Amino acid sequence: MDQGQAYTELLRRVREAALLESCAGLLGWDERTYMPHHGSTHRADQVALLARLTHEMVTAPIIGELLAAVELASLVRDVDSETSANIREIRRQYDRAVKLPKELVEELARVTTRAQQVWQEARQANDFAAFQPWLEKVVALLRQKAQAIGYKSVPYDALLDEYEPGATTAEITSIFAALRADLVPLVSAIMTSGRRPPRDLLEREYPIEEQQRFGREAAAAIGFDFEAGRLDVTTHPFCSGIGPGDCRITTRYNVCHFNESFFGILHEAGHGIYEQGLPAEHFGTPLGTAASLGIHESQSRLWENQVGRGRPFWEHFFPRAQQAFPAALGEVALDDFLFAVNDVRPSFIRVEADEATYNMHIILRFELEQALVSGDLKPADVPGAWNEKFKQFFNLTPPTDAQGCLQDIHWSMGGLGYFPTYTLGNLYAAQFMEQARCDLPNLEDDFRAGRFQGLKGWLNEKIHRLGQRYRAGDLCQRVTGRPLSHQPLMAYLRGKYGPLYAL
Amino acid sequence: MDQGQAYTELLRRVREAALLESCAGLLGWDERTYMPHHGSTHRADQVALLARLTHEMVTAPIIGELLAAVELASLVRDVDSETSANIREIRRQYDRAVKLPKELVEELARVTTRAQQVWQEARQANDFAAFQPWLEKVVALLRQKAQAIGYKSVPYDALLDEYEPGATTAEITSIFAALRADLVPLVSAIMTSGRRPPRDLLEREYPIEEQQRFGREAAAAIGFDFEAGRLDVTTHPFCSGIGPGDCRITTRYNVCHFNESFFGILHEAGHGIYEQGLPAEHFGTPLGTAASLGIHESQSRLWENQVGRGRPFWEHFFPRAQQAFPAALGEVALDDFLFAVNDVRPSFIRVEADEATYNMHIILRFELEQALVSGDLKPADVPGAWNEKFKQFFNLTPPTDAQGCLQDIHWSMGGLGYFPTYTLGNLYAAQFMEQARCDLPNLEDDFRAGRFQGLKGWLNEKIHRLGQRYRAGDLCQRVTGRPLSHQPLMAYLRGKYGPLYAL
Repeated sequence: MDQGQAYTELLRRVREAALLESCAGLLGWDERTYMPHHGSTHRADQVALLARLTHEMVTAPIIGELLAAVELASLVRDVDSETSANIREIRRQYDRAVKLPKELVEELARVTTRAQQVWQEARQANDFAAFQPWLEKVVALLRQKAQAIGYKSVPYDALLDEYEPGATTAEITSIFAALRADLVPLVSAIMTSGRRPPRDLLEREYPIEEQQRFGREAAAAIGFDFEAGRLDVTTHPFCSGIGPGDCRITTRYNVCHFNESFFGILHEAGHGIYEQGLPAEHFGTPLGTAASLGIHESQSRLWENQVGRGRPFWEHFFPRAQQAFPAALGEVALDDFLFAVNDVRPSFIRVEADEATYNMHIILRFELEQALVSGDLKPADVPGAWNEKFKQFFNLTPPTDAQGCLQDIHWSMGGLGYFPTYTLGNLYAAQFMEQARCDLPNLEDDFRAGRFQGLKGWLNEKIHRLGQRYRAGDLCQRVTGRPLSHQPLMAYLRGKYGPLYAL
Repeated sequence: MDQGQAYTELLRRVREAALLESCAGLLGWDERTYMPHHGSTHRADQVALLARLTHEMVTAPIIGELLAAVELASLVRDVDSETSANIREIRRQYDRAVKLPKELVEELARVTTRAQQVWQEARQANDFAAFQPWLEKVVALLRQKAQAIGYKSVPYDALLDEYEPGATTAEITSIFAALRADLVPLVSAIMTSGRRPPRDLLEREYPIEEQQRFGREAAAAIGFDFEAGRLDVTTHPFCSGIGPGDCRITTRYNVCHFNESFFGILHEAGHGIYEQGLPAEHFGTPLGTAASLGIHESQSRLWENQVGRGRPFWEHFFPRAQQAFPAALGEVALDDFLFAVNDVRPSFIRVEADEATYNMHIILRFELEQALVSGDLKPADVPGAWNEKFKQFFNLTPPTDAQGCLQDIHWSMGGLGYFPTYTLGNLYAAQFMEQARCDLPNLEDDFRAGRFQGLKGWLNEKIHRLGQRYRAGDLCQRVTGRPLSHQPLMAYLRGKYGPLYAL
C-alpha cells in the first residue's frame, strides 16, 4: 500500500466511525425529544453498544499503522495543507483514545451516569453532602485521565484539550485575568448608575404558538435551513448535527417569559448554521468537523447576542414581534424593549446571567476546576470555596448550594475543562464580529432591512467551511489578523452598555 | 466452553445484532416521520453501515460454531422447550444469511433501492414500460436468491419462508383456493342484493385535531400503551417496534375521510400491542420476536376489523364519535354508520378494499408472483396477465396500469412472497377471534362497555408472550385446537354481511 492509499484507507476508517457515531447522535436527539418514557433502558443499551463499536473502530491498531505510514510520507511536509490538518487531528484523537485504558473509560462512563442522577436529586434537595462522594469519584477519575493522557505543564491542560484542542491553561488564565480586570469596573459602574430596565415587559403572556412561529421565522431569517434541519421542543435545549443535510435544534417555551425560547432559538440556530456550513464532502474527517467548542460557542453567541440583542436586529424584528404579541408588546417602545433584553445585574445562576456578568461565572468555575484537578481543592471544600469566590466576584452569597455549586450538570458529567469554552466563545464572537463589521461595512443597514445573508456568508467562508483545518487560535489569527484578545468583547460591552446605563 | 456457555454466548451475540438492528429501526422511523428533506443521503449511508455491521454479526463463523455445539448437546432434545425454539430459529436465520452470497445481497439492495424510485415515477406516469426492466432485474435476482437458499418443492417456498417461516406454497394454495371458492358467491350475492350503504357520511369534514384526539383515545382504550410508544404522522403508515418499552405507530389524516386515519390507527395499534406484548427479557432472541408476518397481521386485522368494525365496539364509541364530530355525525344513526364502515364493493386498489374483496386482491398477486418466480410469467407480460385475472376475479378491467399492476410498492422492494401474509393475517385473525369468543363469553358486553383488557390479556397470554416459541401453524393449532382453516373467516364475513345486505 503506498502512502496515498494509506491516507485514503485512513480516511475511510475515520469516516465510518463518524458515521456510526452519527447514528448515536440521532438516538440521543430522539431520547431528548420524542422517546416514550419506558424506552430509556433499551435506549441506554443501544447507545452503549454504538459507543463500544465506535471506540473499537477509532482505536483499532490499523489506525495507528496507517497514521504512522502517512506521517512518514511527504503528505505532512506542507503543514498548511488540508491533508496535513486531517492527519494532525486524527493523530490527536487517536493518541487520546489509545492512551486511555479501557477500564478507565468504562469506569468513567459508569460513574458519571450515576453521578448525574445523584446530582439531579442533590440539587433538588439542596444536599451537597449527597453529591460529594460522587464528585470525589469523578475528580479522582479525571485526575487519572489527565495523567494517562499526559500534558506539558499542568494536568488541567489534558482535560481542556478535549474540548479546545491545543488551548493551554496558561493562555486562558492570562486572557481571563485581563477580561476580569476590565469587567469588574464595568459591572460596578452599571450597578451604581441607578438605571434599571423595565424587564417585567418580558414576563407578560407570550402565547406559545406565536413564540414557535416567531422563533422559527427568526431562525430562518438568520440562515438556519429548515430543509436541512428541524426545531423541536426539549427540557434542556441543545443543537445536534446529525450529518450533512440534517441538523436538529431544540428549545423550550415559557408562556410567561419571552427570552427563554427566543434567544435560545437564536443561540441554537447559531450552532446549527455552523453545522450546516461544514463542508459535506469532508463529513467524518477533521476537515468536516467544527474547530473547537469555543469556536462553536462563538457562533451561537454571535447570533444570540452580538446580532440578536442589537438595535439593528430589532429595528427589523420589533414591529413583527408587536404583531405577534400585541397584548404584551403592542404599547411598548423599542427603546424599552431593547433595554429590557440587555438588562445587567449580578445573579446566582449562570444560565440566567447577562452578557457581562456571565463571564464572571465562568472565570469562577475555571479557577475552581483547576484547583480540583491539581488537588489543591478537595471536593468536600467546594461549597465553601464557591461561596467565598462568589462573594469576592459578585459581592453576594448564594443562599443555598442549589443556587451555588450544585447548579450545573457539567461536573457530574465529568466535564471539567468544558466551562472555559463558553467565555472563549464570547471572546471569539466579539473579535469575529469586530472583523465582520470592517469587512462588511453595510452590516447594520442589512440587519435593519432583515438581511443576514451577508454575515452568514462571511462566517461560512471564513470559519464554517474550514472545519478543523486550523486550530481555534490560528483560525482567529487568520480571520481577524490578531491573536485572541479580551479587548473586542470589552469594546462591544462598553459600546452597548455605555448609552443604556448613561455611563 | 461447555454447552451451557455456548448457548449463553450464542444468545449474547444474536441479541447484540438485534440491538444494533434496532438502532436502524429508529433511524427508519425518523426517516419516515421527522427527518428533514436534505438528510436522506446521509441517512442512507447510516442505514447501509448498520445493515453491513449487523450482517457481519449474524453471519460470523463463530455463530455457526456455537450453533453446532448447542445442537449436539442435549439442549435441543426436548423439542418443545424454549431453548430448542430459540436454537431452531437462530439456525434458520443463520442458514438463510450465510447461504446468500454477499454480492447477491448487495446487488439486491442496490437494485431494489433504484427500482423503488423508478416504480414511484412509473406509477405516477402510468408507464409500465419504464418499470419493466427493473422488475426484470428484481425477479432475476430473486430467482437467484431462491436457488441460493434452496427449497423442497418450488422456488417460491424459499421466498415465502422469509416472511412466514415454515409455510409452504402448497398449503397456502390449498387454503386460498377454498377461501376463494366461498368468497366469490358471497361477494356476488352482496353485489346483486341491491343494497348500498350511505358511505358519503364518512366523506364529510372530520377536523384533523379531533381525529387525532379520537384516534389516540381509541388506541389507548384497546390497550396500546403510550408510555411505551408514540403515534406520529407519516405518508405510508407503519408500526415500528424499536425495543422493549418503545414502539412507534404512525398514521395519516385526511380531513374528508373518517376511515383513513381511524381504522389505520386501530390497525397499527394492533401491531403495536403485539410488539408491546413480546417478552422484554427475551428481546433480540427468537423467543422475544413476533412469530411471523401472518401472525403480526392477524393482530392488526383483529383490532381493525373483527373488533373495530363490529357493532359492540361502536355501541361504546359511536356516541363519543358524535361528540367529537358533531357536524358530520350528530344526526347520523348508528346503523347507517355501521353499514357505511362495512361497505363491500369490488374496486381496483387493494389498500382501499373491504374485508371480503381484499382477499381476492391478495390471491391474484399470490398467483402472479408464483408464476414470476417459476419463470412461467415474464415481467413484460405482467400487465396483460394482471388485467386478465382481474377481469376473471372481479369482472372489471383496470383502466390503467397505475390502478392495476403498478399500484403496490412490494415488487419494486423485492418483496415477492410478502403478499400472502396479508390474507393469512385475516384468516388467523378470524380463527383466533372465534376461539376468544369461546374462551371469553362476555366479550361483546365488555366491548359495549368500552372494556378491551379481557381480549388484550387473552392475546398477550396466548400469542404475544410466546414470541417465536411456535411456528405460526403450530401456534394456531395450540391456540384454537385446529389447523388454520378458511371457515372462521367465511363464517365471520357471512355473519356480518348477511344482515347488512339481507342475504
